[in-house]
Amino acid sequence: MPDNEDIEPIELIKRAIDAEDPSALLAAAHDTHYADLAELYQDLNDAERDFFFKTIGPELATDVVAELPYTLIEDALGHFKPAQLRFLLSNLSDDDRVDIFQVVSEEAQVRFFSLLGPRDKELTKNLLKYEEDTAGGRMTTHVGRITADMTVKQAITVLRRDREDAETLARIFVVDVQGRLEGKIRLRDLAFETWDTSIRDIMEDADEFILATADQEEAARTLSKYDLVVLPVVDEFHHLLGVITYDDALEILQEESTEDIEKLAGIGGEQNELSYLNTSAVSHFRRRVNWLVGLAFLSIASGYVMFRFSETLEKAFVLSLFLPMVVAAGGNSGGQSATMVIRALALGEIDKGTLFRIAWKEIRIGLFLGLTLGICMAAFITFILPYLHLTAAPDFSFFKLSLAVSSALTLQVLSATLLGAMLPIGARACKLDPAVVSSPSLASTVDVSGMVIYFTTATFILNL
Amino acid sequence: MPDNEDIEPIELIKRAIDAEDPSALLAAAHDTHYADLAELYQDLNDAERDFFFKTIGPELATDVVAELPYTLIEDALGHFKPAQLRFLLSNLSDDDRVDIFQVVSEEAQVRFFSLLGPRDKELTKNLLKYEEDTAGGRMTTHVGRITADMTVKQAITVLRRDREDAETLARIFVVDVQGRLEGKIRLRDLAFETWDTSIRDIMEDADEFILATADQEEAARTLSKYDLVVLPVVDEFHHLLGVITYDDALEILQEESTEDIEKLAGIGGEQNELSYLNTSAVSHFRRRVNWLVGLAFLSIASGYVMFRFSETLEKAFVLSLFLPMVVAAGGNSGGQSATMVIRALALGEIDKGTLFRIAWKEIRIGLFLGLTLGICMAAFITFILPYLHLTAAPDFSFFKLSLAVSSALTLQVLSATLLGAMLPIGARACKLDPAVVSSPSLASTVDVSGMVIYFTTATFILNL
Repeated sequence: MPDNEDIEPIELIKRAIDAEDPSALLAAAHDTHYADLAELYQDLNDAERDFFFKTIGPELATDVVAELPYTLIEDALGHFKPAQLRFLLSNLSDDDRVDIFQVVSEEAQVRFFSLLGPRDKELTKNLLKYEEDTAGGRMTTHVGRITADMTVKQAITVLRRDREDAETLARIFVVDVQGRLEGKIRLRDLAFETWDTSIRDIMEDADEFILATADQEEAARTLSKYDLVVLPVVDEFHHLLGVITYDDALEILQEESTEDIEKLAGIGGEQNELSYLNTSAVSHFRRRVNWLVGLAFLSIASGYVMFRFSETLEKAFVLSLFLPMVVAAGGNSGGQSATMVIRALALGEIDKGTLFRIAWKEIRIGLFLGLTLGICMAAFITFILPYLHLTAAPDFSFFKLSLAVSSALTLQVLSATLLGAMLPIGARACKLDPAVVSSPSLASTVDVSGMVIYFTTATFILNL
Repeated sequence: MPDNEDIEPIELIKRAIDAEDPSALLAAAHDTHYADLAELYQDLNDAERDFFFKTIGPELATDVVAELPYTLIEDALGHFKPAQLRFLLSNLSDDDRVDIFQVVSEEAQVRFFSLLGPRDKELTKNLLKYEEDTAGGRMTTHVGRITADMTVKQAITVLRRDREDAETLARIFVVDVQGRLEGKIRLRDLAFETWDTSIRDIMEDADEFILATADQEEAARTLSKYDLVVLPVVDEFHHLLGVITYDDALEILQEESTEDIEKLAGIGGEQNELSYLNTSAVSHFRRRVNWLVGLAFLSIASGYVMFRFSETLEKAFVLSLFLPMVVAAGGNSGGQSATMVIRALALGEIDKGTLFRIAWKEIRIGLFLGLTLGICMAAFITFILPYLHLTAAPDFSFFKLSLAVSSALTLQVLSATLLGAMLPIGARACKLDPAVVSSPSLASTVDVSGMVIYFTTATFILNL
């Protein structure tokens, strides 16, 4: 028998499940971080999941369930008997409990709610008032509260009583008798000050806070900007309702980045928190198909332009050599500027009123880019193309062609760059998601303008 | 005169700078968070920056400089006299100081180094051994260290002495006499345990740690996964070298997301930390132009395919109606699968050995997507196109056209989806950055295959 000391606990768990050995599973599960258990759980089949939860019991399962992707939670809770479920639900921290209520079916919501104790019922109802993606929807209400007139000793006594209850004591907040936020204290100050010091003398101002109705992204950005461990959440009367913690911020920022990246690639729907491999092919298909079909029908528009200009193309088929290039250059440059602006919007770098500064910047960038590309292509057409013998007519004017291609290219890149920068800002102004004006849908639009610009410029300059 | 109480401190600072009023500036700056001061600094001109730093002095300036984008730091430090600079450099936390040494010119490095005290020189030299993007390059060495044989009272005495020095006391680490990591203690346990408790009795295992040579992204992901405030950094002998904190993790994850998003759009170079508006048009241009020119020359390849198939196109010009669509569908579907896989790689969801599972998943997704698109287009060609009178020949076979377009579309989407998923994995296997195999460069490649697939399928089915 191999020495168990040398084997990763996660490997021991897998073996215990395969061998259906409850005591080995329990021992190994207690040696493993719940985040790793939650990861492992996703790879189990239904019978294995049942055995896993039955063995580890509702106490350890609480942490695991809180870490699971939302789509797996309702099914996971189905593995518990009502008495176990009652324990598990009351054992969850209040923000995790509310998260669960927000993602399960209505039928499950009613059933779970009936299992809660009266205090948890009240608390959950209050937290459910806030939208899932607001600061209030994300906060935990467990926070160390003291008043300014306490001494350090009194504060420690109060906090020691609440110790098991508070998710974080890294920051303790000072409130007045009405519960309004007055200041903050570091735990280290309590630990190192003499016991008769007054809280009022050592508390700091709580300058950073956020309204419960504010967007969760704003909360995450505030935490990140000011390097805070916790950010107090208040209502409009400045009552302290709860806190958002740094680990929420990490999660929020990761989710938002993934969502933006996916939208830029024309992938629809909510990110479901399941990992790539654990998402079924059917659900991948669903998130991708709508945009693809929509974009395909959009692309027929540029096919129509090409079809309309068939005579121009027939007269000088050498034009086809540069058609995809001019069209693609617009898609690429528009995609670049759209991405820059969308990211700047997401990071909160762009305010209202900077529209003209952005437009002016992108006009210059687009012009530089278009001219550079135009010059490169003109050089290619003048110095290299004649030696490739691709055009039949010996009196063909390579000079005119280079002029036509480079003018069209400059126009196309300039307009696409400007459009790419302005569309996300326009979308934001219309309260739409800027990232949905994504590179592929922008590219489809720019394709049409590229065809038109190319063929009209060519007709004009080549006198076709 | 307006009541200053009602005006934002940041507005007061702007006014004080305009009025060149040092005392008003100093007062307002002390009321403002250094992160806000750093943001404001970026909008000042050179003379204003000089006045700003001269007024607030090196102490407050330390925090501001540490928050500045890297590209502005060398210039910012140029505003100080040697004596002030000596104070500022010694006042910086060790990780911020090393960051600065890593980004300034060599000439400045030598000059700054000569200003450091002997202890800081030693420390800085040690930290500079680690690459900028490793855990060691990001860590701070300021951390609470105690040994297991101390009592709570002894530990508090030791930590109180180091209190001003330690960047975070949220976690305190237990080391042995050789300085090897043994365990961890929460500050709250010290604060709430009786003074004669032995540290050994209350310390927990320090299961999560990272090697100094590991990638900074791995450190950030570990912090995020296990919801840690600090992650200890060790060498290969398990000596505790320092810690990575949650705010580093937030910064690292934001930087990496932005970089990935930009690479996916074909934007080159390092993200320079300056906000979009504070980056000059010239430097935006530089980051975009290389990819654009490269992709433009790549696109000529698909132009060449189109040129080669000019006869096919001339015989049935109605084919041009669907050419851009078939080509674009490949770019879009390939871009989607590439994005999914690149993000999964970035989040650490995909291990070695899962290549076949991914390929099998994407083959199914690609086939579903291709068939769906094919059926939609076949329906469009059969039921709608005949009534648009776009083709001259009355005996034209819409059935054959629909067969040609939908077969080509299915083939194109299937191959592009598979290619989009496999390229990033191939890039990772060759130690290249998966995100650089970005949507636009993938699209250019897929454009060529789309043209070939479309024209050969059409020639075969329409018997041209």
